[in-house]
Amino acid sequence: MKAVREVEFEGHLIDSMIFPRVLDSILDLEGEFEILEFRVGKRKTDTSYAKLLVMGRDEDHLREILTELHRLGGQIPDVEDVDVEIAPKDKVVPKGFYSTTNYPTYVKYRGEWLPVENIGMDKIIVIDGNQAVSKFISQIKKGDLVVVGEKGVKVIPPERPREKTFFKFMGGGVSSERPSTQTIERIAGEMIKVKNRDGKIAIVAGPAVVHTGADEALAKIIRMGFVDLLLSGNALAVHDIEYNLYGTSLGMDVKTGEPVPGGHKHHIYAISEIISAGSIKKAVEKGILKSGIMYECTVNNVPYILAGSIRDDGPLPEVITDAVEAKVKMAEAIKDIDFVLMFSTMLHSIAVGNLLPFNVTTVCVDINPSTVTKLMDRGSAQAIGVVTDIGVFLPMLAEKLEEMSEK
Amino acid sequence: MKAVREVEFEGHLIDSMIFPRVLDSILDLEGEFEILEFRVGKRKTDTSYAKLLVMGRDEDHLREILTELHRLGGQIPDVEDVDVEIAPKDKVVPKGFYSTTNYPTYVKYRGEWLPVENIGMDKIIVIDGNQAVSKFISQIKKGDLVVVGEKGVKVIPPERPREKTFFKFMGGGVSSERPSTQTIERIAGEMIKVKNRDGKIAIVAGPAVVHTGADEALAKIIRMGFVDLLLSGNALAVHDIEYNLYGTSLGMDVKTGEPVPGGHKHHIYAISEIISAGSIKKAVEKGILKSGIMYECTVNNVPYILAGSIRDDGPLPEVITDAVEAKVKMAEAIKDIDFVLMFSTMLHSIAVGNLLPFNVTTVCVDINPSTVTKLMDRGSAQAIGVVTDIGVFLPMLAEKLEEMSEK
Amino acid sequence: MKAVREVEFEGHLIDSMIFPRVLDSILDLEGEFEILEFRVGKRKTDTSYAKLLVMGRDEDHLREILTELHRLGGQIPDVEDVDVEIAPKDKVVPKGFYSTTNYPTYVKYRGEWLPVENIGMDKIIVIDGNQAVSKFISQIKKGDLVVVGEKGVKVIPPERPREKTFFKFMGGGVSSERPSTQTIERIAGEMIKVKNRDGKIAIVAGPAVVHTGADEALAKIIRMGFVDLLLSGNALAVHDIEYNLYGTSLGMDVKTGEPVPGGHKHHIYAISEIISAGSIKKAVEKGILKSGIMYECTVNNVPYILAGSIRDDGPLPEVITDAVEAKVKMAEAIKDIDFVLMFSTMLHSIAVGNLLPFNVTTVCVDINPSTVTKLMDRGSAQAIGVVTDIGVFLPMLAEKLEEMSEK
Amino acid sequence: MKAVREVEFEGHLIDSMIFPRVLDSILDLEGEFEILEFRVGKRKTDTSYAKLLVMGRDEDHLREILTELHRLGGQIPDVEDVDVEIAPKDKVVPKGFYSTTNYPTYVKYRGEWLPVENIGMDKIIVIDGNQAVSKFISQIKKGDLVVVGEKGVKVIPPERPREKTFFKFMGGGVSSERPSTQTIERIAGEMIKVKNRDGKIAIVAGPAVVHTGADEALAKIIRMGFVDLLLSGNALAVHDIEYNLYGTSLGMDVKTGEPVPGGHKHHIYAISEIISAGSIKKAVEKGILKSGIMYECTVNNVPYILAGSIRDDGPLPEVITDAVEAKVKMAEAIKDIDFVLMFSTMLHSIAVGNLLPFNVTTVCVDINPSTVTKLMDRGSAQAIGVVTDIGVFLPMLAEKLEEMSEK
Repeated sequence: MKAVREVEFEGHLIDSMIFPRVLDSILDLEGEFEILEFRVGKRKTDTSYAKLLVMGRDEDHLREILTELHRLGGQIPDVEDVDVEIAPKDKVVPKGFYSTTNYPTYVKYRGEWLPVENIGMDKIIVIDGNQAVSKFISQIKKGDLVVVGEKGVKVIPPERPREKTFFKFMGGGVSSERPSTQTIERIAGEMIKVKNRDGKIAIVAGPAVVHTGADEALAKIIRMGFVDLLLSGNALAVHDIEYNLYGTSLGMDVKTGEPVPGGHKHHIYAISEIISAGSIKKAVEKGILKSGIMYECTVNNVPYILAGSIRDDGPLPEVITDAVEAKVKMAEAIKDIDFVLMFSTMLHSIAVGNLLPFNVTTVCVDINPSTVTKLMDRGSAQAIGVVTDIGVFLPMLAEKLEEMSEK
Repeated sequence: MKAVREVEFEGHLIDSMIFPRVLDSILDLEGEFEILEFRVGKRKTDTSYAKLLVMGRDEDHLREILTELHRLGGQIPDVEDVDVEIAPKDKVVPKGFYSTTNYPTYVKYRGEWLPVENIGMDKIIVIDGNQAVSKFISQIKKGDLVVVGEKGVKVIPPERPREKTFFKFMGGGVSSERPSTQTIERIAGEMIKVKNRDGKIAIVAGPAVVHTGADEALAKIIRMGFVDLLLSGNALAVHDIEYNLYGTSLGMDVKTGEPVPGGHKHHIYAISEIISAGSIKKAVEKGILKSGIMYECTVNNVPYILAGSIRDDGPLPEVITDAVEAKVKMAEAIKDIDFVLMFSTMLHSIAVGNLLPFNVTTVCVDINPSTVTKLMDRGSAQAIGVVTDIGVFLPMLAEKLEEMSEK
Repeated sequence: MKAVREVEFEGHLIDSMIFPRVLDSILDLEGEFEILEFRVGKRKTDTSYAKLLVMGRDEDHLREILTELHRLGGQIPDVEDVDVEIAPKDKVVPKGFYSTTNYPTYVKYRGEWLPVENIGMDKIIVIDGNQAVSKFISQIKKGDLVVVGEKGVKVIPPERPREKTFFKFMGGGVSSERPSTQTIERIAGEMIKVKNRDGKIAIVAGPAVVHTGADEALAKIIRMGFVDLLLSGNALAVHDIEYNLYGTSLGMDVKTGEPVPGGHKHHIYAISEIISAGSIKKAVEKGILKSGIMYECTVNNVPYILAGSIRDDGPLPEVITDAVEAKVKMAEAIKDIDFVLMFSTMLHSIAVGNLLPFNVTTVCVDINPSTVTKLMDRGSAQAIGVVTDIGVFLPMLAEKLEEMSEK
Repeated sequence: MKAVREVEFEGHLIDSMIFPRVLDSILDLEGEFEILEFRVGKRKTDTSYAKLLVMGRDEDHLREILTELHRLGGQIPDVEDVDVEIAPKDKVVPKGFYSTTNYPTYVKYRGEWLPVENIGMDKIIVIDGNQAVSKFISQIKKGDLVVVGEKGVKVIPPERPREKTFFKFMGGGVSSERPSTQTIERIAGEMIKVKNRDGKIAIVAGPAVVHTGADEALAKIIRMGFVDLLLSGNALAVHDIEYNLYGTSLGMDVKTGEPVPGGHKHHIYAISEIISAGSIKKAVEKGILKSGIMYECTVNNVPYILAGSIRDDGPLPEVITDAVEAKVKMAEAIKDIDFVLMFSTMLHSIAVGNLLPFNVTTVCVDINPSTVTKLMDRGSAQAIGVVTDIGVFLPMLAEKLEEMSEK
C-alpha cells in the first residue's frame, strides 16, 4: 500500500540549489511527489517555502525517501520527538543511529528543540539530560541515549548568501588560474573583518611553511594578533625550533640554501634541547627559544595543539601522541572558531575539515591541487581552495595584513 | 697549523659515484687532497681502492671534512674505538652524538667491530654490553652509552650493482612515461624471486586501495602467500571491512558506483560491529567477517600493524593509537623484510621509508608523483617510483603473479 | 524609466539547475522578477514551464539581464528576427556580435528557425542565404552577414537526463578515487552501445600512449572497428612508427626497458623513412610499415588528422603544420561524432574540447588531474574525467571490448 | 678478433661525474678497459686527464662502445676527418647520420676543427663549404653533405662548475620545498649579473601569466630592460590585449574577480580590434593599445615570436601559424641568448628546451611539477625547476629586480 507524507522546506530554496535536489532525490529513489505549495522569495532577503506531498510504494520505501529529504532540510509538520536507543556497549552504536552532517542540527526532545553541540561530520547524537551532544564513536559509553532515525531531527542546510562575497570572488573549484595577489588581498580583508567583529581565526599548518621559508611571515601574523589557535604536528614545531636555534631547515642554511656541516643533526638537537628544558613553554621562559612560530604562540598566549604522527622524530614534549586524544582536543578547541586557514598539510587539513561545522569559512592553501580536491571530497564542501606556493603566499599575506590594518 | 690525515676508501667507488663525491666534498669544504693510491677495478666483480691524504686548515677544519668523508665510507687506517658519552636525561642526547644514516653501519668497541642493529635514518647508536643498537631519541634512557663523533664508526655506502637488474629497468626518477605492463611484470618477477629465496615482502597500503576497487586483488595476493607483513592505518581496515560486510565503499555500491540509501553510515557500523565482536580477529572467528584484506591477513597469519591518525573514525580495536608506540612496533616488524611495496599512502610510505635500511628494495606506487618525490627527498633514495593508478595496477599484478607462479 | 519584459523557459528546469540559475542571475545583476507561471513536471519524462516578468532600471539594464537569461535558454514570446550586421573587413567582427555557446542553437531569420551548423564555443553566426553557419573569426569574410545581439537566437541548454546513466556512474569532478576496473567496463559498454546504434567514436591521443606501452592496445581497438576518427599530432605517429619499425620508444627497447645503441636516432630514422616513402599511406602500401596505430588506421580506412606543433621533429608528410588549417579540418571532421575519448594530451584535448558541441559524450583519460580540470574550466563542462594510467587503462579497455563484443 | 683503441678524456672528469659514466658505459656494453693514465686535478681550476685502452669483441662491438664514449667527450688521438654522405632526397637522412646532442660540438673537416653552429638536440650536421651547421630534418636538402658516424666529431660535455653558484643553490630535482623568497632573490641576482655583462635574457611565457594577474609585473620587467626576447603564443598576447583594452581576463574583471556582462566576447573583440588595426605594432602606433606585455615589447623594441597552435582563437596577425616556420624562427632567435626563463607553459618550454644549447642557463617556473619533470626528461637536463605560483612569483621578482638594480 502506498504511503504518503507531507514535507515542508523553508529557506533560500532556489539559489542554494536545494529545491532541485529535493525533487531529484525523490525521482531518483523512484518516489513520486505533488507540489502543494511553492512560494519563491522575490528579494535578496526573502526566503522561499514549499510544501510537497511525497509518495512511496510502502512505508519502508517512503522512509528511505524521507531520510534523504531530511538531509536536505525537509521537515514533517507536527514533528514528534526523536527516538532514542541505549548504546549496548562502550563504542557500539544501536542499529539505525542517526549519523550527523556538518550542518547546524536540532533535535526535538520532550517537545523542545535542542541544538546539537559540537556538530561535525559522521558523529552520533546523544541525549544527556536536557542537552543534545554529538559524539565520536570512540566517546560512546554503554547506556548512552543515542538518537536513531530521522524523526524529530532538523538540519539547516547551507544557504549560499546572495550578496557579493568573499566566496563569490574565490569561486568554486580548484583552478590555479585566478589572479593571485587579488586572492591574497581578499583573504587578508576577510581576516581583518573577522577580527573586527571579535571572531576567531585558526591556522592549520604543515612543516612546508618552514621549508619554504614562510615561517617568519607566519610568526609575524601571530604577533600581529590574527591567530587564535594553531593546529599542527611535531614536524612544524621541530623545524621551526631548528631554524630559530640553528638557522637551518632540514640541515640547510635557509639564507644560502647550502648544507651546513653537521646540519643533519640539528633537528634531533632541537628536540633534545626542548626535552631537556622540559617543554617548549619552558624553553621560551628560560630564554633558549627566542623567536619563531612556537615562540610567538607562547608569548602571545595563542593555544596550539600538536598532534603526533608515525613520521615524527622525538616527539617534542607538548605533542599529543595518542590520535584519539588529539582528535578530541582538536574538536574541543575549534568549537568557537569562525575562520580556518589551512597551509600545506593534507593530513591535518582533512582531519580538521572533518571536525568543522559547515558554516566555518575554510580556506585551504596548497601547491598540490589534490589536497584541496580530497578535502572537498571528504565533505568539507565549504572549503575554498587556493593553489599557490605557501613560500610566497605567506610573506605577501603578512604584508597585506600590515598595510590593511594600518588603514 | 695544517692538519692532515690519511683516509681510505674501498668498494665500487667509480660506478657508485662515491669517489667523485669524496673529492667534491673536500673541495667544497675548502680542504685539499693528494691521491696517494688509486686502483680501479677492471671487471664487474672488482672493487676499487683509493688512499687520500686530506688536509684542513687546522684540526677543527679537518674534523669537519672527515665527518663528511665518513658518511661516504671513508676510513682512517688503524681505527680507534668509538667515543661514548652518557645520556644526561631520558630522551636527551649528548652533544656531538653520532646520527645514523640508513646504510649498514659498524662501530669499533673494545677492539671489535659491532654491527649496529635496527639501522634506520637519524637514529642514535647506544652501546649496550657487547651490542650496538640504534635507538630513536624517544627510546634514549638516562645513563645510556651514546656514540659521539665519527671515530670508530664505519658505514658501508650503497653500491649500484653492475648487473642488469630490476633497478636498472625501473630507472631513476618519477616519470610516468614507462611501459606500464612491463613494469608490472618486472615487479611480479621480483616478488616471485624474493619468495623463492625465502625472502619477506611487506605491503604498505592506504585506503585508496579499497576506494579504487583494488581490494579484492590485494586480498588475493595475500591469499597467494606473497605478503609477510601489512603496514597500514585504520582507514584501510575500516573501508575493507565496510566493503566486505555491506558491499559499499564510502557509502557507494562498488559495483554500480551509486550511493546506497543509508550508506554513509556503513563505515561507522563496520567499526561498531568489530568493536562489538571484540576485534577483527574475533570477528573473523565468529564468522562475521568472511572476506577481504583483513580477513585474509587473519586466516593466513599475516601480521599487520594499523597505526592510528587524527583522521580516524573509531578506531578499530587493533589500531595502535599512540604514534610513538606504533612507530617502535613498525620498526621492529620490518627488521627482516627484504622487499617493500607501498600503495597510495604518503603518510605511511614516508614513515616506513624512514625506518628502512637502505638495502631493502622499495617500490612506491602512487598516482600522485609528489608522494614518490617526497619519499626520495626524505632520504629513501633507494625507492623506485611507479606513477600509476592502483585501481588498475593491483588487479594486473595479481593476474601476473598467478600466471608467473604457475610456470 | 523601468523596463519590463516577459521571458519564458521550458525544459527540465528543475533538475538541470536552470531555474535557480535564472533567478540568481536576475538578482545578481540587480534586476527584479515576478513569477507569472510555474509548472513543474511530475514525472521523469515531463518538462517544466515558467513565465517570468523581468524588470530592469531602464532598457539598457534590462538588455544586459536578458543577455544572460538568453544563455540559459530564456525566450521572449513573439520572437522577432535576428539582427545582422555586415563584417567590415576579413576577420573583423561587427560590434555586438553574438558569440556562440557549445549548446544547440537556432536563429529566427525571415520568420523561420534555422539551426546553426557546426556549433562550437566562441564562434560567430553568419547568415548565408537560407542557412545559419557558425564560423571562427579567421573564417569571417568582408561582407558576411553577422548575427548581432541575442534577439531571435534560441539556445537549448543541456538537460541532465534523469535516467541512471553512464554519466551518473562516472559522477562529476576529477577525483581519482573511483573503482577503476568498473570505470573501464562502463566505458567499454558505452562504446559498444554507440557502435550498435551506428554512432561514431573519435579518439584524441598523445604520444604517452606509445611511451607507456599502450599502443598495441589502441591498434587493436582500431582493428576491432571501434574508432571512426583519430585526432593527434606528429609525436604519436612518429613514436608509433619508431616502435613498429625498430621496437624502441624514445630509443629504449620497449620489452626490456633498456636503451638500444644508436636508439636515440630511431625517431629521426622513422621520419626519414616515411618521407622517403612519400607518406604513411605509401609506407604501408610498400610494406615498410606493417603494424601499429597508424598502420591500422590506414588499412581500416580510419581517417586521421595529425596537427603540427612547435615541438615536432620532422614532421611526417601527413602532418598539417598550419594551426589554422588544422583547426578548421578538425572542426569539420568531428561534426558527426557521438563519443570522444581523449588520452593523455592536454593540448589536443582542450583544442578538440573547444570544437565539440555540448551533447557529444566526452571522456578524458589522463594521469594528470590538471588536464581534466583545465578542459572543464575551458567550457567543456560535459567532459568526464578519468584519472588513471593510460598504460594499463588501454590494455584493459581492449580486453573488455573484446569480451563484451563476443556476447 | 679483439679490437682495441686508445681513448682520451680531458676536463672536470671527476666532479662532473663523467669518468664514472665512461667506465660504466664500457662495462655495460660488455667491453673491457685498462687505465693507461689518470691525472686528477687537485685544485678547483685544474682539469683532469685520462687515457684508456678500450677493448671490444670485434670492430663492430668496439665501434658501438666508442659511439657511447664519444657522447661523453671521448677523443681518439690523431683524429681523422669526419665521414660525410650525400642526402638522397629533401628531408631524408643517410643511414648512420650523426645525431647531435645539445652540448658544444666540433667536427674535423679537411684537417680543421669547425664549430657546429646552431647546436640543439637531435639535429643533423651538414658541411657547407667551410662551415658546419646543424639542421632539423625538415631543413635537409637533397645533395647536402651530412656527417655520418662519430669519427672526427668532438663534443664538450657539461662541466659542473666547482664554485658555489646559482645552480648549487637551486639544487637539482623539482622539490617544492625550497625557501621561495630566497629563490626569487637568486634569480633576480642572476638576471642582473647577466645584463651587467651584456648578456641576453629570453622569456618563454604562457597565458597563465595573465590569468594569475602577473602581467603587469612582466610588463614592468620588460620596461626595466631585462628582456631581450619573448617567446610565446597567441593566447598570451590575446589575453594581455584583452586585459589592457577591457580590464578583463577570460571575461572576468581582474580587480573584482567577477564576470563582466558580455565579457566572454572580449577576447574575440581584442583579436578583431588588432586585425582591424593591421597588427599589434600598428595598434600601438595608433594609440589603441597603450599598456601591457605586448605594448612594452613594441615600444622597447623587444622582439617576440608568437607561435600558433590548434587551441588558438583568431589568431592575431603577428602569430606564425606554421609550426615548422615558427620552430625555425625560434631556433634562430635564441642563438645568442644566455639565460632563459620559462613561465607556466609546457608546450613552449619543451619546444624551446629542445632548441637550447646545454650551456644556456634555463629556469622553468611552473606550479605543476610535471612541466619541469618532462622538460628534463626531454633532455634539457640543465634546466632548474621552480615549483611556485607565477601569480605571486612575478610581482615579487619585479620588486626584487627594482630594489637590487637601484643598489
